[in-house]
Amino acid sequence: MADHNDPVDIQGAVCPIPLQQKETIVMGHGSGGKMMHDLIKSVFSSAFDNPVLAASNDAGLVTPQATDSLAVSTDAHVVLPLFFPGGDIGKLAVCGTVNDVAMLGAKPEYLTAGFILEEGLAVETLERVVASMAESAKEAGVQIVAGDTKVVERGKADGMYITTAGIGSVLPDTQIGGQYARPGDKVIISGTLGDHGIAVLSARGELGFEADLKSDIAPLNQMIAEIIAASKHVHVLRDPTRGGLATSLNEIARQSTVGITVEETRIPVQPVVQSACEMLGFDPLYVANEGKLIVIIAPEDADLVLDTIKQNCYGTDASIIGEVTDEPAGRVLMKTVIGTHRVVDILTGEMLPRIC
Amino acid sequence: MADHNDPVDIQGAVCPIPLQQKETIVMGHGSGGKMMHDLIKSVFSSAFDNPVLAASNDAGLVTPQATDSLAVSTDAHVVLPLFFPGGDIGKLAVCGTVNDVAMLGAKPEYLTAGFILEEGLAVETLERVVASMAESAKEAGVQIVAGDTKVVERGKADGMYITTAGIGSVLPDTQIGGQYARPGDKVIISGTLGDHGIAVLSARGELGFEADLKSDIAPLNQMIAEIIAASKHVHVLRDPTRGGLATSLNEIARQSTVGITVEETRIPVQPVVQSACEMLGFDPLYVANEGKLIVIIAPEDADLVLDTIKQNCYGTDASIIGEVTDEPAGRVLMKTVIGTHRVVDILTGEMLPRIC
Repeated sequence: MADHNDPVDIQGAVCPIPLQQKETIVMGHGSGGKMMHDLIKSVFSSAFDNPVLAASNDAGLVTPQATDSLAVSTDAHVVLPLFFPGGDIGKLAVCGTVNDVAMLGAKPEYLTAGFILEEGLAVETLERVVASMAESAKEAGVQIVAGDTKVVERGKADGMYITTAGIGSVLPDTQIGGQYARPGDKVIISGTLGDHGIAVLSARGELGFEADLKSDIAPLNQMIAEIIAASKHVHVLRDPTRGGLATSLNEIARQSTVGITVEETRIPVQPVVQSACEMLGFDPLYVANEGKLIVIIAPEDADLVLDTIKQNCYGTDASIIGEVTDEPAGRVLMKTVIGTHRVVDILTGEMLPRIC
Repeated sequence: MADHNDPVDIQGAVCPIPLQQKETIVMGHGSGGKMMHDLIKSVFSSAFDNPVLAASNDAGLVTPQATDSLAVSTDAHVVLPLFFPGGDIGKLAVCGTVNDVAMLGAKPEYLTAGFILEEGLAVETLERVVASMAESAKEAGVQIVAGDTKVVERGKADGMYITTAGIGSVLPDTQIGGQYARPGDKVIISGTLGDHGIAVLSARGELGFEADLKSDIAPLNQMIAEIIAASKHVHVLRDPTRGGLATSLNEIARQSTVGITVEETRIPVQPVVQSACEMLGFDPLYVANEGKLIVIIAPEDADLVLDTIKQNCYGTDASIIGEVTDEPAGRVLMKTVIGTHRVVDILTGEMLPRIC
């Protein structure tokens, strides 16, 4: 161990970091000392360049736009592998939290990011993930204003885990939440289901064939701002991530004590996703999405909002898939292709672990 | 795998959870489905009981007290073992982030918590940690308003990792930060150094003797509120966690482009910590604290603030340990017991991994 008090070199380079330590993460990068500061400076500060982070205090000072009501959310990300078609853990960490904040009708403004890194991780891999986070943050219009880095031993943390938290200003005159669905409302989905879950599975080599498929990960806050600008009658916004559309609709049905009926023929699913699901025994209704939006809206504005969504680059396949009913309260039903109704329950066990 | 669409049991108990799955964490608890909802309800919602969390939306809606300026921070916690004398990972996760927010002169109000759980973790262990978080949050006066749970396979996460983010309202008329130290200011430390790091090491059995020592983990926001109420001339507040007092003082010296000189004889260290450090070749100046505060303050208010700190239950051993100087800018010096001066550098490598 270096003597931390060695006065020989007053410039701070008492213990030059060996080349190997520059290239891979070592325990010392989580020490709180010089190695961590160097890592923060060379990897994080340059990518997440903003004055709040540059102030280097224990916390970042921020000034949200709307100040009487903020939306706050957090997500831990443990996806495997770290990179997959259409995205990576960094893009996921930014978009997942941006989207959760936006689902309350808020404008996401600030993120924090806590990194748990595995000893031996290539710094270049971390740099790629951080660059991806910076790019997604730029697209979403959010600043990453606080961060933390810890390092755990080899064999733990699968390269890295990233936990983000997000803060957004609730837009004026909005009252959006899972409890506001009303009988008669229409249910819109912004695009095809299951793309993210099946893309990650494909990247793991678990499909047994090459799927021409990308994850749908995207920041949806711009689309949501357009929807809210178009209609004052948006009641619920939700992104059907883990547990898929079926689980999200069940949550909403319970929160609002309403029934929801969707029509199987109106639910958009890419053929490659449908094939993969049939092969694996999955139901696309339960597969995770990371760039899709459920909108529950007063019927008079449903077509207007559908058009608004379709004009956004992330909503071209949007569809009105069903409606809110009085009964059965707290339940979701599906009108099948052959015209019968069946109960669509919440996801019970585990279908696809580690997809976000 | 259960058929998620099985309409047999309309009450949602399609697949009753086996007893074993109730007692330990399984991958399904991270699925986003029924098992995760049950875990959230039985473990988290009851302990973190508050209306924001109870709304069960993608994000929590909050209304901070001061709205023009917020302090935001995050910390990832990977401490080993999960429980140690004086605390546990849950208390650490709450206090660590509460303290970081408070260091900018803010009143911490809201926390988020992202849990990464290891498959096989006893649910009872999780419950103990969550109860500890709830207790610390209550003491600190903060609400846990958003959370997320992921599960990773056995061997990946040492039981659990917890990443918290915190939001606080900056108190009026305060301008506190690492960049505001001025020559002539006094440096106060709120108590003995190194208690946390050595207590964790002791819990790992790495000391070779039984140390009668507890971690100092504590929420410091009440103490800080008292300090700010007592003096308008607080320039810097910082908690010397990873990297210890030496690293924190170096950070401040660099941010403010000042020198800092401390006197060895004035730095409080418990004899048991001193002994352990001598035995292990550590310097208490570099050992982590989790309930200590550095205050840098205009000289005219130093005694007043020292008295204020001493009256707080977490500040009885507080001491004025040094002062801010013009030169050498960006450097920390220590006047030793024998009257010489030596450079105190930032922590260079790794001393005690996984202590927070």
